[in-house]
Amino acid sequence: MSFELTILGSSAALPTSKRFPTAHLLKAGERFFLIDCGEGTQIRLRQYGINPSRIHHILISHLHGDHVFGLFGLLSTLGVMGRKVPLHLYGPDALKELIDYYNRFFGPLPFDLDIITPSESSGFIFESDKLTINAFPLKHRIPVFGYLFREKKKPLNVRKEQIEAYGLGIADIMRVKRGEDFVTDSGTVIPNSQLTLPPFHQRSYAYLSDTLFDPELAERVKGVDLLFHEATFSNRDKKLAAQTQHSTAAEAATLAKLAGVNKLLIGHFSSRYKEPLLLENEAKEIFENTTGVNDGDIYSIPLERLSGE
Amino acid sequence: MSFELTILGSSAALPTSKRFPTAHLLKAGERFFLIDCGEGTQIRLRQYGINPSRIHHILISHLHGDHVFGLFGLLSTLGVMGRKVPLHLYGPDALKELIDYYNRFFGPLPFDLDIITPSESSGFIFESDKLTINAFPLKHRIPVFGYLFREKKKPLNVRKEQIEAYGLGIADIMRVKRGEDFVTDSGTVIPNSQLTLPPFHQRSYAYLSDTLFDPELAERVKGVDLLFHEATFSNRDKKLAAQTQHSTAAEAATLAKLAGVNKLLIGHFSSRYKEPLLLENEAKEIFENTTGVNDGDIYSIPLERLSGE
Repeated sequence: MSFELTILGSSAALPTSKRFPTAHLLKAGERFFLIDCGEGTQIRLRQYGINPSRIHHILISHLHGDHVFGLFGLLSTLGVMGRKVPLHLYGPDALKELIDYYNRFFGPLPFDLDIITPSESSGFIFESDKLTINAFPLKHRIPVFGYLFREKKKPLNVRKEQIEAYGLGIADIMRVKRGEDFVTDSGTVIPNSQLTLPPFHQRSYAYLSDTLFDPELAERVKGVDLLFHEATFSNRDKKLAAQTQHSTAAEAATLAKLAGVNKLLIGHFSSRYKEPLLLENEAKEIFENTTGVNDGDIYSIPLERLSGE
Repeated sequence: MSFELTILGSSAALPTSKRFPTAHLLKAGERFFLIDCGEGTQIRLRQYGINPSRIHHILISHLHGDHVFGLFGLLSTLGVMGRKVPLHLYGPDALKELIDYYNRFFGPLPFDLDIITPSESSGFIFESDKLTINAFPLKHRIPVFGYLFREKKKPLNVRKEQIEAYGLGIADIMRVKRGEDFVTDSGTVIPNSQLTLPPFHQRSYAYLSDTLFDPELAERVKGVDLLFHEATFSNRDKKLAAQTQHSTAAEAATLAKLAGVNKLLIGHFSSRYKEPLLLENEAKEIFENTTGVNDGDIYSIPLERLSGE
């Protein structure tokens, strides 16, 4: 089962010839989640060979144009392609008015659009048998949500040789898969860990854009495999970052360090930096496992069993 | 003085990996006119090395998304770039509500936006000392305007040897430049054509998208140097063209022939045709000097003197 992030756009407000405005695509198993939808997102999907019809969930962080101006085009395209199944759209309250406006001038769409507005205290905004998504507020000039994707625990795999050794029946196996120990007829407790393969790691991805540096976010994204944190500015433009309520590369790295994440991705680079390697290097001084993203990058997290358990 | 058309987007409703939605840029002298603004127009401008700040006039044919979804992003970018000078926006009435909506959610812009709505009987919607623009209705599912750009007559160039031969003074030269004959002291009339170089050809470009085939348009665009006519469909999908109120390549060519234009450009190709050469060939059977456009194409009309006059 894949857990794979594709960068569709990595620029900040001003796109460049190589960087489209912000959009990420997370493939979790067979589900595609589009996160933000800057201008040209549908074109990037075409260029990267991804059929937009496969997307059933679009999460918008906030209603600044560089995160949402591709939405109208994508919705229209899905309509023209004859989509019938509902599309789930998550984001701040103002999204409803955006869609009202779309419907008035460019609608109607031939499919239902379910709009889900996270509340600041909401739990999961999405939950399936395999994945959960949390939304939580970031600190920017208008309401913004960060999103955390995390796999659910997978059922344990029972060791075949133990099934035979203890003569486990179907009902026993189901219980062991859920994590229970096994008690033999003679009353001996066989610990679950002895009966099963090590559990799979629950893969996770957190998306934080746009936001001021906020150390309290570290708790929200603690220990994620992959953290995207916007890094619009270099630390030498720290004042500008504060004025516009954005983060610097150093601040993004500081959050990654506080949160103890595995890998940090930075992007949403201001077009003032001709060479975003500068921003990557700035972040690496604080958090070594940092990559500055480019359009078209794919970051895949392998499905691995936890070792040592 | 240049008169040069750049194709920024050549697809119909669905963009492809190589074709962005519709947008054309006409450079007439030092002025840039953007005609339609499909999603990604600002990205194409960057990719083709054109500074969007140089655009002062944007003409929108109609309010279907594939002709206008790039407008919000372009306006935002101009704002972020610190534009102060007004921008002139031409198009159907509904454009005002589109801009109202933009201002409410994404504004305010730091520059004035002048919205000019052509009336069906309006004369020039733009006029400078060098160029005029006409707007006229096309036939589509919603109000659409076609646009005709035509250079004004340039002052005549007086032949230097004739200035000396007839001893022309400044006032005489001014009159001759305007086209008047010269009368010598002895009463001899020297015809203007003998005193001046042949006049410059008045270059012209007409843009017709989207529209049903309408033979009455031939009069509007009679004899233009360059005619863009949408060709969404092949003649084999003629019924679909009629249903959706679009044209076929054969119909575009028929209009070019009726109008006696110099060169026909076709585009706005439906993504159903993997090889738009099919459409070009279909048109060429009726009007030989036809080209199917691609994103990035540049069509330049040289400044030439009329011969034989």
